[in-house]
Amino acid sequence: MTTEIPPGRLKRAPENFLDPAQVAAVQAGRREFLRGAFLAAAAALPAGARAAGDPAILELPASSRALGQPVAARPYGEPSAYEKNLQRRQSPGLTQVGQASVSFAPLQGFFGIVTPNGLHFERHHQGWWDIDPSTHRLMVMGLVRQAKVYTMDDLLRLPSVSRIHFLECGANTGMEWGNVSVPTVQYTHGMLSCCEFTGVKLSTLLDDCGFDRARGKFVLAEGADGASLTRTIPMDRVLDDVMVAWAMNGEMLRPENGYPLRLVAPGIQGVSWVKWLRRIKVGDQPFGSREETLHYVDLMPDGMLRQYTSIQECKSVITSPSGGQVLLDKGYRNVTGLAWSGRGRVKRVDVSTDGGRNWRTARLETPVLTKALTRFNIDWAWDGGPAILQSRAMDDTGYVQPRINQLRAVRGTRSIYHNNAIQSWKVEASGEVSNVQVY
Amino acid sequence: MTTEIPPGRLKRAPENFLDPAQVAAVQAGRREFLRGAFLAAAAALPAGARAAGDPAILELPASSRALGQPVAARPYGEPSAYEKNLQRRQSPGLTQVGQASVSFAPLQGFFGIVTPNGLHFERHHQGWWDIDPSTHRLMVMGLVRQAKVYTMDDLLRLPSVSRIHFLECGANTGMEWGNVSVPTVQYTHGMLSCCEFTGVKLSTLLDDCGFDRARGKFVLAEGADGASLTRTIPMDRVLDDVMVAWAMNGEMLRPENGYPLRLVAPGIQGVSWVKWLRRIKVGDQPFGSREETLHYVDLMPDGMLRQYTSIQECKSVITSPSGGQVLLDKGYRNVTGLAWSGRGRVKRVDVSTDGGRNWRTARLETPVLTKALTRFNIDWAWDGGPAILQSRAMDDTGYVQPRINQLRAVRGTRSIYHNNAIQSWKVEASGEVSNVQVY
Repeated sequence: MTTEIPPGRLKRAPENFLDPAQVAAVQAGRREFLRGAFLAAAAALPAGARAAGDPAILELPASSRALGQPVAARPYGEPSAYEKNLQRRQSPGLTQVGQASVSFAPLQGFFGIVTPNGLHFERHHQGWWDIDPSTHRLMVMGLVRQAKVYTMDDLLRLPSVSRIHFLECGANTGMEWGNVSVPTVQYTHGMLSCCEFTGVKLSTLLDDCGFDRARGKFVLAEGADGASLTRTIPMDRVLDDVMVAWAMNGEMLRPENGYPLRLVAPGIQGVSWVKWLRRIKVGDQPFGSREETLHYVDLMPDGMLRQYTSIQECKSVITSPSGGQVLLDKGYRNVTGLAWSGRGRVKRVDVSTDGGRNWRTARLETPVLTKALTRFNIDWAWDGGPAILQSRAMDDTGYVQPRINQLRAVRGTRSIYHNNAIQSWKVEASGEVSNVQVY
Repeated sequence: MTTEIPPGRLKRAPENFLDPAQVAAVQAGRREFLRGAFLAAAAALPAGARAAGDPAILELPASSRALGQPVAARPYGEPSAYEKNLQRRQSPGLTQVGQASVSFAPLQGFFGIVTPNGLHFERHHQGWWDIDPSTHRLMVMGLVRQAKVYTMDDLLRLPSVSRIHFLECGANTGMEWGNVSVPTVQYTHGMLSCCEFTGVKLSTLLDDCGFDRARGKFVLAEGADGASLTRTIPMDRVLDDVMVAWAMNGEMLRPENGYPLRLVAPGIQGVSWVKWLRRIKVGDQPFGSREETLHYVDLMPDGMLRQYTSIQECKSVITSPSGGQVLLDKGYRNVTGLAWSGRGRVKRVDVSTDGGRNWRTARLETPVLTKALTRFNIDWAWDGGPAILQSRAMDDTGYVQPRINQLRAVRGTRSIYHNNAIQSWKVEASGEVSNVQVY
């Protein structure tokens, strides 16, 4: 695992809409040039165009003087051409082949809590497929009275539920276990998304097949990918809120996210949200699959492996300002980020701008939902000096997000998974923001 | 205004994943052919592959036997190739030119409450633009102490808020005022969307400019399109929850939806959500713009015009089954739809399957948010006979969605806008669903 990320590409994710020349001009202390240029142009307008209290009427832009594009020019829309740089990106060198790899979501350019489907992160074990839904089948078997095979049509006729939940890979922020700091929030925390999912509760299917309530204590979920990815989920979590979902954010799942069917296991690490779901098996003990015995285990300081650690603990990160961004000048700015907990609702987020000495409580945007991302915002007036930005979340169980040294004291430094430590972003006097570790 | 919609295209929005041949086969009473075909294939597997309680192991699909596509194969993702038929569509003949027209959102294929950005409905008065955000400006002027011009960079540094709200064109369901019934829910109710918006409260900008609280009673919003679209909004609504937004559903606005800046006026008809927002003016009386005097007024039975009717009243519609879909066979199915109110939260949705004689209360999916779409679901066992499906919403003010004849008794039949009547879908014994008016 390496961190050979071309820094040039990452510098192109600024917090603003200025081109590099404008950034340089602003940083040279000529921030007013934009407004000045406008006012000079506006002053050329006839005085008659000015009403009482108006300084000058803005000159009409080109778009106000001509006919635009027609409706349905794009039957399925796309982002602005000016947003092309906001992409999910693979981390070069992280894995040997792209089919068993990760593409990270650009959290630095996200707003609110909904993840755009086109920018949802990817983690595949053997590549993704666009499976024909008319041929796809889901089998429910094992400790059931009547094993059944469902078509997509069968499933869509069943009672459906819609819920907003976050999805985080267990390996998210894995680089930070050691002393390696990857440069941007896209690479530190970008294996994270949050969508509204629609599907049928898995418990509805298990009831339909008459599962053995006395002996059926675990469920195996299997995907129709080349890895036949399989994970065990304890029955109490299955009966709580696990779904078999076909839709995310209002439309059918995207192929990269398991079209036409995936498991949604709220609060549980992403690997258990089995994509291209084809089989559910009820058993009386954990199935001990490859992805829960060889991988997704935590190597503890005593050399033992911590297994089946499925819940994603309470965590948060400031997404702007964040690593790779540049603050253009001193003064007021909104600091924003995301918080979440696999155990319930986010109760509070505190933010520090001095590396953890002082904390202020951020404002949480509504709705604050269980096992969903929560957006926080807080005011900050940058004085132009060095600063270290941190956020610290607390969930409704009372759990508080730990510092990295607190986590290392318990779990060592050899882990890959389940790092939910406080993230630190250093702001230089130059305005440049970078990833640092604060102990 | 005509309804020349090619019916052939609309029949291709079924509730299922079967192709026309499969639909025909199923309707011929051979619904079990799919499952039968599978079981025959599965039975060919060796007996050793079968565990206790398992009927047969599903044969591995092709996707489980090969390498799929790599991550970031599409840096910005797209829907499955099997979903290409789900598009926003213009209604041919509705308007003379596509720049002053509507494309309708395919509600029949939506899930939950979030509208995918690529399928958000469009209503332009002079076409859409993809405006360069580095050149875009917003001016705040009129009855203010200090008029100001904001760059996008200025705005993004201000305190931001994120909220989920519906957006409905005042003309949505306009065809149904008369006796014209358009065939599908895409065309009856498709000028409707719901997104999470992020931006700055307009009140924050007005405070920044020191607006005149004594005299400033109205705000004019103007767009940077060729129509220079302008609408008046009363100050009490502005100070309540109106936003100047740059993002929807986690990413920057799409060009068709006002990139880089639009007004978000929760609960108010869509025309007031001015796109490509370039100017805000504070005044002491309504501005009487073209789009609030000549258009977006309701012609009442006495020949007078009802003006400034901006709030979208409580409304609901069943999205599946709905017009143009075909029920494949009798028995259980989930009936689902959307409800909303411009005045607050949806409190209850009742559903009838017999044209309004009997009603049952549907289950509302959470979260139920103010001035946002609410998804409802209810069980139904179709007996194979004719049926008429209706939904009736109530909001937290106690207002109940009216029948079309109740609405006509007050407002006549010459209106275009503000039709929030109960929608009726007729199910034939053949399973075909069509739009009917029930008085």
